[in-house]
Amino acid sequence: MNIRFYNAKMLVPAKDGRFEIVEGELWVKGKEICYLGDGRSNLEEVCKDRDVIVWDRELDVKGNLLMPGFKNAHTHTAMTFLRSYADDLPLQDWLNKQVFPREGQLTEDDVYWLNILGIMEYLTSGITANFDMYFFPPVDAKASVDTGFRTVQTSGLNNFGGTVELMEENYHIVNEMSDLTSFIIGFHAEYTTSMELMEGVAKLAQKLKSPVWLHNSETKLEVEECKGRWGLTPTQLTEKLGMYEYGGGGYHCVWVEEPDFEIFKSRGLTAVTNPASNLKLASGICPLKRFADKGVSLAIGTDGPASNNCLDMFREMFLASTLAKVREMDAACIPADEILYMATAGGANAMQLSDCDSLAVGKKADIVMIDLQQPNMQPENNIVKNLVYSGSKQNVKLTMVNGRILYEDGRFDIGFDPAEVYQRANAVIRRMK
Amino acid sequence: MNIRFYNAKMLVPAKDGRFEIVEGELWVKGKEICYLGDGRSNLEEVCKDRDVIVWDRELDVKGNLLMPGFKNAHTHTAMTFLRSYADDLPLQDWLNKQVFPREGQLTEDDVYWLNILGIMEYLTSGITANFDMYFFPPVDAKASVDTGFRTVQTSGLNNFGGTVELMEENYHIVNEMSDLTSFIIGFHAEYTTSMELMEGVAKLAQKLKSPVWLHNSETKLEVEECKGRWGLTPTQLTEKLGMYEYGGGGYHCVWVEEPDFEIFKSRGLTAVTNPASNLKLASGICPLKRFADKGVSLAIGTDGPASNNCLDMFREMFLASTLAKVREMDAACIPADEILYMATAGGANAMQLSDCDSLAVGKKADIVMIDLQQPNMQPENNIVKNLVYSGSKQNVKLTMVNGRILYEDGRFDIGFDPAEVYQRANAVIRRMK
Repeated sequence: MNIRFYNAKMLVPAKDGRFEIVEGELWVKGKEICYLGDGRSNLEEVCKDRDVIVWDRELDVKGNLLMPGFKNAHTHTAMTFLRSYADDLPLQDWLNKQVFPREGQLTEDDVYWLNILGIMEYLTSGITANFDMYFFPPVDAKASVDTGFRTVQTSGLNNFGGTVELMEENYHIVNEMSDLTSFIIGFHAEYTTSMELMEGVAKLAQKLKSPVWLHNSETKLEVEECKGRWGLTPTQLTEKLGMYEYGGGGYHCVWVEEPDFEIFKSRGLTAVTNPASNLKLASGICPLKRFADKGVSLAIGTDGPASNNCLDMFREMFLASTLAKVREMDAACIPADEILYMATAGGANAMQLSDCDSLAVGKKADIVMIDLQQPNMQPENNIVKNLVYSGSKQNVKLTMVNGRILYEDGRFDIGFDPAEVYQRANAVIRRMK
Repeated sequence: MNIRFYNAKMLVPAKDGRFEIVEGELWVKGKEICYLGDGRSNLEEVCKDRDVIVWDRELDVKGNLLMPGFKNAHTHTAMTFLRSYADDLPLQDWLNKQVFPREGQLTEDDVYWLNILGIMEYLTSGITANFDMYFFPPVDAKASVDTGFRTVQTSGLNNFGGTVELMEENYHIVNEMSDLTSFIIGFHAEYTTSMELMEGVAKLAQKLKSPVWLHNSETKLEVEECKGRWGLTPTQLTEKLGMYEYGGGGYHCVWVEEPDFEIFKSRGLTAVTNPASNLKLASGICPLKRFADKGVSLAIGTDGPASNNCLDMFREMFLASTLAKVREMDAACIPADEILYMATAGGANAMQLSDCDSLAVGKKADIVMIDLQQPNMQPENNIVKNLVYSGSKQNVKLTMVNGRILYEDGRFDIGFDPAEVYQRANAVIRRMK
């Protein structure tokens, strides 16, 4: 499809600082952005094609905003079935008493449909790619391919499920499945995974030259127990095991200790913050400002819908920003444009999606249109601050992934009937009751 | 207007606990709910009228949810003009350097239009009444009357503006203006108001038999300085001045000390929490659980859009709940139905709107329709938890105030063109630059 957006405001990388807003047109040819400018000048990038592009659609943006899609840098998408089912328990009880027993009953078919429900929710929130850890990565990935959504899968390997060999197999299956899918090495967490398995993960990462990801220092108890077992924090232990030869990072990173920051920095790791989940499970508040001051790469994720309980990057952005402010008791802490960068390019960087990180010629067309003609976006004093501090799913007018419009004005174009998806999700839960 | 909602789920007061969900019909006759039931039985309440009701509209709710409108129990609506304009400063600097100088330039006409912008945003969030403190209460109230919105005004009297006499005048003007408007005595805060003015407020409250409201213990500095001046916390000082003969309460209530809880309880005061604003200005986290344990009445407000930066009760509900959990490091702390009660009936109670607090026969028709056929509301494991933990403005399908549908499917029916409202708000800011 070739799509011309005109009369647009566009959020683009700035020469100085993170973002600037320019006005004009953005052209999508197939899966990529082939032009971004005022529609008259700088046409040389597409000069050769310009005369022969046949527009499938010309879309008047009416002064609204085009921006790069949000990258949800940590989630367990198919946990949609547990939304508002298991709540109000501390992390360990919640996992052991509520989550694990029900997850044991999930079939591959369940997981496929629960993924589609989650993908629909991503689209309503302007999310164009997820960094997903769940059972059956090839099934999770297929749900993405079938709906047209972009996914990076990692493994949730732990003592109760999976093997290093299966992870290697999934690595190849998912990486070779589609240009919408990729796979990075990972495992659940130190507190659920034996030393033997962790050593296997490290070896596999070195063999495949892959980064490694895990839940890291989510709760105080996790870090205390890890130190009790190994005399090291989870960050120090995984570093010692040789996991980070090719980078990677940690999800949550709430209870990080001083030497851990140095490891994140020296290894080029990314810390992914999951503020809503950390509040709801009473895990704590991530030291985002300290990571930023140390120069560590940062990204933002929703975590799964069982602990959040939704998949909303607007809520996560507001929380990431304002929890940093209240944690440091400093209202000036971490400006809005840094947060928006984490939620877009920061996530893309963590997920090895450098061709999806921003609006620029040659980048993949993973684009969101934000409705500025809503009361929460007015007046237009500062559009970036409006996005971070007052934006909402209500403002997502259109979500495009890989050049395809998957969501527009509240309607999905993903090849599935929403009513059937909801009915299937409800059936999974009914079966378990 | 007489409106029949059918095929509805309805959130009603429960015999045991806070809420239950029943299915059936809800009938609105004029400004009131005249029937709520399965549409066949219990028709006696409207029996006399039933044969003669002519429906102006019969609305198929399609299994979606009708619930009482949210009550925004603390706000400064017209501060919409400062959204994303003054940010990232601590409270005192933010007030003195950014807010006050610009507020000094506002005209009554500005405030009228800025109120209308805020009211539009309330409607998108399912808010049906606000407890507003700002300049020109009769102007604020007129914006509500002209749009059909319900408002309770209080005074922001302080050393830099207003007099006790003017407050008394406004009390009568606003209380007599319309059945949509009322006025309760209040002043800005101890740290901005002289002893002479505060004594005048106390006398006026006793004369008019009115509750009294103020910003109370929002920042640590405020409480320390108050204790330095008077040897008492703001709560103790205002109690000693005789302000609470007829009840009232405090906004924010973050830095409350042990004896303050007793005053709140014994005087029947309400503590209104404003979690988003308290995070963004790095003021702190309200001890909501301690208030609840002491049996103090609670409500939730957005605060003004300059400090929040939006007017979204879904965000406030999520924050009120989850900040309590992380503050107490207890994921079981304050269940979702308590939060939903604070955001509806708790606010109505604080605002003396007992006839707008719930869905029941004889109550005012201040009703919101929530779209459950959205991915963030599925599966329907627990609708109340879905509302509190994953609800969003995106789910607000219809907002009715006093029997009139003011917002439906993204369109406003308030007698104003949204484009003109946005243009006026932008003009105010342009004039100040």
